[in-house]
Amino acid sequence: MNASIIRELKAIVGPQWVATDKEDLICYGYDATPGFFDLPEAVVQPANKEEVAAVLKLANREKFPVYTRGSGTNLSAGAVPTQGGVVLSTGRMNRILEIDPENWTAVVEPGVIVAELNAAVEKYGLIYPPDPGTVTTASMGGTVAENSGGLRGLKYGVTKHYVTGVEAVLADGSIVAYGGRNVKAPGYDMVMLFTGSEGTLGVITTITVRLVLAPATRRSMIATFAALPGAGRSIAEIISNKIIPATLEIMDNYTIRTVESFAKLGLPVEAEAIILAEVDGDAATVEQDAAKMEGILRANGGEVRVATSAQERDQIWAARRAALPSLAKLRPSTFCEDATVPRDKVPDMVRIVTEIAARNDVAIGTFGHAGDGNLHPTIVTDLRDAAEMERVYKAMDEIFDTALKLGGTLSGEHGIGLGKLKYMPAQFGEEGMAVMRSIKQALDPNNILNPGKLVG
Amino acid sequence: MNASIIRELKAIVGPQWVATDKEDLICYGYDATPGFFDLPEAVVQPANKEEVAAVLKLANREKFPVYTRGSGTNLSAGAVPTQGGVVLSTGRMNRILEIDPENWTAVVEPGVIVAELNAAVEKYGLIYPPDPGTVTTASMGGTVAENSGGLRGLKYGVTKHYVTGVEAVLADGSIVAYGGRNVKAPGYDMVMLFTGSEGTLGVITTITVRLVLAPATRRSMIATFAALPGAGRSIAEIISNKIIPATLEIMDNYTIRTVESFAKLGLPVEAEAIILAEVDGDAATVEQDAAKMEGILRANGGEVRVATSAQERDQIWAARRAALPSLAKLRPSTFCEDATVPRDKVPDMVRIVTEIAARNDVAIGTFGHAGDGNLHPTIVTDLRDAAEMERVYKAMDEIFDTALKLGGTLSGEHGIGLGKLKYMPAQFGEEGMAVMRSIKQALDPNNILNPGKLVG
Repeated sequence: MNASIIRELKAIVGPQWVATDKEDLICYGYDATPGFFDLPEAVVQPANKEEVAAVLKLANREKFPVYTRGSGTNLSAGAVPTQGGVVLSTGRMNRILEIDPENWTAVVEPGVIVAELNAAVEKYGLIYPPDPGTVTTASMGGTVAENSGGLRGLKYGVTKHYVTGVEAVLADGSIVAYGGRNVKAPGYDMVMLFTGSEGTLGVITTITVRLVLAPATRRSMIATFAALPGAGRSIAEIISNKIIPATLEIMDNYTIRTVESFAKLGLPVEAEAIILAEVDGDAATVEQDAAKMEGILRANGGEVRVATSAQERDQIWAARRAALPSLAKLRPSTFCEDATVPRDKVPDMVRIVTEIAARNDVAIGTFGHAGDGNLHPTIVTDLRDAAEMERVYKAMDEIFDTALKLGGTLSGEHGIGLGKLKYMPAQFGEEGMAVMRSIKQALDPNNILNPGKLVG
Repeated sequence: MNASIIRELKAIVGPQWVATDKEDLICYGYDATPGFFDLPEAVVQPANKEEVAAVLKLANREKFPVYTRGSGTNLSAGAVPTQGGVVLSTGRMNRILEIDPENWTAVVEPGVIVAELNAAVEKYGLIYPPDPGTVTTASMGGTVAENSGGLRGLKYGVTKHYVTGVEAVLADGSIVAYGGRNVKAPGYDMVMLFTGSEGTLGVITTITVRLVLAPATRRSMIATFAALPGAGRSIAEIISNKIIPATLEIMDNYTIRTVESFAKLGLPVEAEAIILAEVDGDAATVEQDAAKMEGILRANGGEVRVATSAQERDQIWAARRAALPSLAKLRPSTFCEDATVPRDKVPDMVRIVTEIAARNDVAIGTFGHAGDGNLHPTIVTDLRDAAEMERVYKAMDEIFDTALKLGGTLSGEHGIGLGKLKYMPAQFGEEGMAVMRSIKQALDPNNILNPGKLVG
């Protein structure tokens, strides 16, 4: 990237918002995915869509890559600048533009943090349901681009179920807007096309989301199972008894032991599985569903503790929240995957992943969103150990292969990025991939937007 | 279309499934939209995706148009064969392939009637929520292609909120499949791209939908208002009081008078508006919400009747269901539009449409889904009266212009087709349209699939 391009970038966003020093560039060379690092040539921080448009026009003319970056919490290397060019940080576009308590909608810029939006709508008795684990750091733009999920997916769905409008700058610098605050809208569903497109089709500059009523009350419980099948039957029976928990999580034995050894929460280290669940809604329904759920968990051999105070509730969810950080402390490198299977295949998946770990002699803790089948087999390893990494990648192949064989998908909420790119043809077929690539080609003919990701 | 193409079509689907006689073709020359009629050159009825693929390969080679047609209930001329070529009827692909009561999903062929699916899942205590007015005749394929809505949109959303997987044959005859029974999935959201694409991107051959729990109970009521503002305030207050009715409908005075004159249901013909509402869910919540809603309606001047039996409930919804048929009986031609506005703009929209009707001297009855802002201003007229039609089209322009000015959209659930094509640039801008056209071009370079519709 020559000096004249840098000069032009500085003219667009102001010199203080273009970084080119190596120590600055390093911070933007990686995201939360282990094993991927590359230096960009510059980092730009535009203040608004006009500046984004000018940057993209320049990039399209000079044919350098642009990697849009929110908070960099990505788990599939989606934010890593692998082909040189410019990282475009959305950090300065961080205003909540409007909250409409009548129509239950909000309009935000991409740099708004998810938790900030939730804090802002709370006073209207509303919530924005998507809650990825990184809710306090992840940006709205990043979660829309990655179609992030979270713990409430079973009842509330994922990010795409809440995005109703998107304004985006295309590769050629043109600005388009689709959708709005109506749930019903005509035309090709461009809002959903941008949602989950991982920065490959445009730079999202404004997002309209729908909000929902905050539940009046909620009840949490934790159930420990000596044997995995009891946990599996419980999940099936909870659903078939017409209970839809807001959250229905599972942790396997390896995860339980790891959490306990770090967090000392009094978890039973011999248990093959723990289920953590929360029902929310109207008081009467919650009361009734919680009692039914407790009965089901007990009948299947679960030892149940129901939270009777906010503090006890926090304890339960502290155990769940400790899963990934605890596993991550075991070894230098952590691969948190998100293979997803139909809900009734969750026990099979947990069992098979345990077998895959043993067979390949790698350490895998599995936890995740049992209610919607979105599990997180988390491999803890050491990137510097080439022999072990070979076994890790083999185990990963087997995990994704298993997910697809069970009728599932490669990713529930972390995206494809680079990390899972090689598995895409197995899920979509060459013809299915060709269609996605033709859309990428149509919208970004010079392939400047996050090149090499998602569709290759 | 020469004889050899007809011979090839007959070889693909069997001679008895290719119609070329004029009396057969006429039946496929129109849909439920007044003012559009054109003869196709042939009608083919393939039995499966392989036959669909062979037909499209032929069409792509010989460059003749293919119009996919379900039950022909379309209200935006989406199924009308305006450029010659072949109507492809999905009528024979009418099997429910699977109902999965564990994962609350169903897999169907496109020719399955929406009501048939609902009848089939009922025994598992599940429902498929989208319920267009044509629920007993519309096909699943048609409702997915048009992203149909219905009376339950406020609480349950529209078709796109339930489609989780699509198998489709592309213009070149290749068969692709996206999504499945997981709500969470990676890649460009091709499922949503096909949903609402109005037959312009591919022929949908298999649909996977998610199902939801049937509500335990429900309560309906009807409220008549001497003055429109009271109805408007009621809608706002119901929502701001955190009640989410499954259905929240409005009928204006013109519609009330028309329904009453045909159906003799005892409606108050002087009322400026009627609100019809239903809450559903758990018994306790329904009880509580119904009481609150009744209070709000009364406090705003509504005269309320709550259904106390299934028969009384049926009576209430008979009034709503009679709206379109009654209006349609007034004059030879009926244009049922579906301009959609943010929920809090519904009273403004109803009032302005009444003014538009008076100013242009045309007859418009407005009713529709107040809860999600999706109104049906219905113009009754006579296509043969050129002078009146000029006023009708002027009124239509003003209606859509008003919807966009109020922050709404051109169509909530009827699609764009040909009927509303000219308004598209006003909603999406030329740049926004160009992106949609580039996607059409990428997937259907020879423009054989429903040419001229949706994106022009």
